[in-house]
This record gives sequence, C-alpha cells and structure tokens, in this order.
Amino acid sequence: MQHLPPSDETYCDSKRRQMGVAFMIIIGERINSSRKPIYEAVHSRDASTLQMEARMQVEAGAHYIDCNVAAVGVEEEPSTLAWAVKAIQEAVDAPICIDSPNPIAIAEALKVHRGRALINSITAERMKLSMLLPIVAEHNSRVICLCMDDAGMPRGVEDRLEIAARLMDELTRAGVDEDDIFIDPLMLPISVDDGVGQVILKTIAQLRERFPKSHIVIGLTNISHGMPKRKWLNRAFIVMAMAMGLDAVICDPTDKGMMALVTASRALLGQDEFCMNYISAARSGMLDL
Amino acid sequence: MQHLPPSDETYCDSKRRQMGVAFMIIIGERINSSRKPIYEAVHSRDASTLQMEARMQVEAGAHYIDCNVAAVGVEEEPSTLAWAVKAIQEAVDAPICIDSPNPIAIAEALKVHRGRALINSITAERMKLSMLLPIVAEHNSRVICLCMDDAGMPRGVEDRLEIAARLMDELTRAGVDEDDIFIDPLMLPISVDDGVGQVILKTIAQLRERFPKSHIVIGLTNISHGMPKRKWLNRAFIVMAMAMGLDAVICDPTDKGMMALVTASRALLGQDEFCMNYISAARSGMLDL
Repeated sequence: MQHLPPSDETYCDSKRRQMGVAFMIIIGERINSSRKPIYEAVHSRDASTLQMEARMQVEAGAHYIDCNVAAVGVEEEPSTLAWAVKAIQEAVDAPICIDSPNPIAIAEALKVHRGRALINSITAERMKLSMLLPIVAEHNSRVICLCMDDAGMPRGVEDRLEIAARLMDELTRAGVDEDDIFIDPLMLPISVDDGVGQVILKTIAQLRERFPKSHIVIGLTNISHGMPKRKWLNRAFIVMAMAMGLDAVICDPTDKGMMALVTASRALLGQDEFCMNYISAARSGMLDL
Repeated sequence: MQHLPPSDETYCDSKRRQMGVAFMIIIGERINSSRKPIYEAVHSRDASTLQMEARMQVEAGAHYIDCNVAAVGVEEEPSTLAWAVKAIQEAVDAPICIDSPNPIAIAEALKVHRGRALINSITAERMKLSMLLPIVAEHNSRVICLCMDDAGMPRGVEDRLEIAARLMDELTRAGVDEDDIFIDPLMLPISVDDGVGQVILKTIAQLRERFPKSHIVIGLTNISHGMPKRKWLNRAFIVMAMAMGLDAVICDPTDKGMMALVTASRALLGQDEFCMNYISAARSGMLDL
C-alpha cells in the first residue's frame, strides 16, 4: 500500500478528494490507556512502549497516532498527555490525534506538539465548546466534531445531522477551515441496538452530501463492542462506510485483513486511478494473507 | 451460519425482507464449464465430480447451484445441461440456477428440473426475450434479468435502469411475479474501467428503491477479472453492494472470509434480529479464520 508522506498538504486536502485521488486517513488507536499495557507504560513513564506502538502503526499505514492517557486520572492527565505526545513524536513524524475528554489536558499537549494536531474531540456541549473553540483557533488545529450535545447521545440520523450542522457553524465562524473539520457521527455498538449500523451509514451518506469539503470519521471498533469475533464486523463496517463517503477512521491499522479491504475499497470506489495503488499493494505482498 | 432450508417459501419472499429478516441468496458458481475440471467432468459424463462440487457448495451456504456447461458447444449443450441438472439434483435438494446463453438448452434442462429453477439469464435482446418469455411462464420459473439489450453493453446507471424497467414490464405482463425476478445490473471488471464499481453501486441503490419487491443479483467475481489478489476486491465489493440493497449473489461460497463478511454485513444492516445469526455463526466456529 502506498502511504503518502505525513505532511500537512497531503493529509487534509479536499481538492485532492474532488480530483478523485482521495485516500482514507488512518488514525491508529492503539495508544489508549484503556489497554492495560498502555496504562502501565504511561503510569511508569515508559516511553519506549509508546514509541514502539507508534512505529508499528505508522509502518502499518497510520497517518495520525491517537494518544489517550485519560485513565491516569483528571489531575495527572495534563502533564502525562504532554509527556506522551512528546515521547511519540520523538519516534515518528506523524501528527498526533490528541484524545481527551479534558480541555486542559488538550491545551497542555498542544503546547509541545510539533506540526498540526488533530483534536479528539469537540462536541456541541456548551461548556466543552466554549473551552475548546479558542484553543483550536489559537493552535490552528484540526478537530474531530463528535455529534453529541447537552441533550446527551443522539438517537437517529436527523439529530446527528442537526448537531453536525451546529458544530460546523460554530467552528467555521471561529475561523476553522472546513477541510480541517472531521465529523464523527458517534458510533454505538450493534450489541446495544441492531439498527444502529443503518443509522450511521445513512448519516455518513447525508454528511458527505451536505459537507463535501469536510472529513467524516468514525471510531470503527465501537460498532462491534460486546460481540464475538469482532474483526469481521469491523472489517465489513469500514467497507460499507467508505461506500457511503467515509474518508477517515480511528482503528487498529495492524489488522492486515482490514487494511487489505480498505485498499480494495479505494480501487472499487474510483479513488485509485487505474487501480495502481491496489496493484502495487498486491506486488509488495501486502495482500498476501 | 444458519441456512434456511431450500424450500420455495424461504428463498424468495419479499415479505420476509420487508419484515427485516432478509438474507442473502447465495448462488454457487463453481459448476461452470469454463473451469477445466468441470469441463472434463461434463465432457466425460462424470456425475460424481459435479455432485461433489454441489454438496460442497450447499454445505458452504449456497441456496442455488449454478450450472453452466456451455463450453461443450451449441449442439451438445441441450442434452448435456439436462444431464448435469439431473445429476446435481440427485446429490442435493437445492434448486439449480440454469445458466446458458441458449434458450433451447434452458428448455431441455427445465424438463428434468425438480422444483422451481432460476433461469440465468434473460436479456432485453428481442430474439432472446421472445424465445425465453414463454418458457419462463410455462415452467413458473424464477429468472435473472441481465441489463443488456440489442444495443449491447450498457454504459452507465441510466441505461441500466431503463433496460431493467423494460424487462420488468415485459416479465410482469407475462405473469411473472416481481418476487421471482432477479435483476442483474451487469458487472464489468474494474481492470477495464476503474469507474465501474461506482456505476454498479449506484445502479443497485436505484434498483432497490424502484423495485423493492424484486431481488438484485450480481456475478461477483466479474468485478476483479484481470486483477491480482482478486479475493480482496470480491470481498469488499459484496459488502458494499449489500449496503446498497443487493440481496442475491453468484459467487464461490467456499471463500470462508467472504461468507464471514456476508454474515457480518447482515448483522450490521439490521437483517439479523439481535444479531442472533452472527452470534451463532461465531459459536459454531464459522468465523474462526
């Protein structure tokens, strides 16, 4: 698989998508303190584990490295997140997807981040929005907009679209470029509601139509939470979501079968001129599994 | 994976689909004389090879067994096809998808077929239509309508829809139930045109909307003809097509990874109440690969 270099120009350029050379932006999710080895590494300030995970994900095709250390607790999180971001960027050139529920931790991490970070995430919750908007603007960051507001979890397609429109409005009025906004329709597990897959797919199709210049992202593995043999659900869902217009995903890029399906999907969706990317992935052995 | 028994009622009942219990109709493609071992078996009237292939496909989840012996030549085909259909139905209960360019061979095969066959295929070519329509009506067969007419291969979405509408009109006026019609948008390889994937996906979505009671079928592996590592393209495309409304497919059901993705896709598309079919497939070990 041909991975573009991690420069600002290639990551987020809607012109490229309009020219039919879009590619899936892969955000590697493995550095998350909800995983025990990561929690332990973060807790003991073991940079090498994070660096190894970061390298492995970049090698597997990640364009951003998500970093979540929230499990260390509210007081510890700001300094820990800044430490982790620095440690990861010592190992890889990729920008970080700074993943925290805590605006203060995000602000601390941005102070040490090299290049343009992706903030994960802003919501339409009044308090969060008012704290994060100035930070996003100050650092010229990219930002994931999660379709959630003070009323809590959205239920269907319409409320997701309504929240997305409100967030787009707030962000663009604050000077954030549409290209720098990643809309996340908020995935829920099908184990909780077996209709949620269809709701998310319809939402993605509508978002793509309404906001052609912005990115659409999902936290892929949420869909299969609580289910057995999760990889098949994750793999099928990313393919369906790409067909609806998804162009970014938070996932584990070390699932080679999933990455092979992403490469195939790009070829099938006309995002891979003369299928050259697919053919070179086949030649390099990346589809041998 | 739970496979419904091969009775007429469960195969083709749009009521079931409307109730959200649709399932993918799998048409096993392996008995095709373009494959050398099949050509040899057919040529030497070796029933056991066909029977083994039929059993293997039913076991893997096929609801219909496609049977194509056209490579034996025009004169031999009618008697050979009838022989093959009989041989296969001695081994399995599944109905046959009678696959021939030759209306005379189809008529011969229908004389010996037990139950309701699926004819593969009728087109809007004047001559073919006038020969096959009375045969379909006489045998109360199901039929695959290929979106092709005397003008040759269709080019885009609109001409496919126009041909499909014409065929639907001819068939329903001849008394064929919409439930018994399988519309095939005519797949072409992406190696020939890297935009064809999108054309087919859009066509499927439109057909699903216009003909909600009919089935939509594709010959899956055509998409990857001439490409390396074809299985990833086939697997990704079936998932995308299901998201657009595909509910039948001509494919090789012994590709376990593809069948796992079909099972996952049904769960994700709300076609598997409480995901019970997916969970039981996981328990039975069918997703262990």
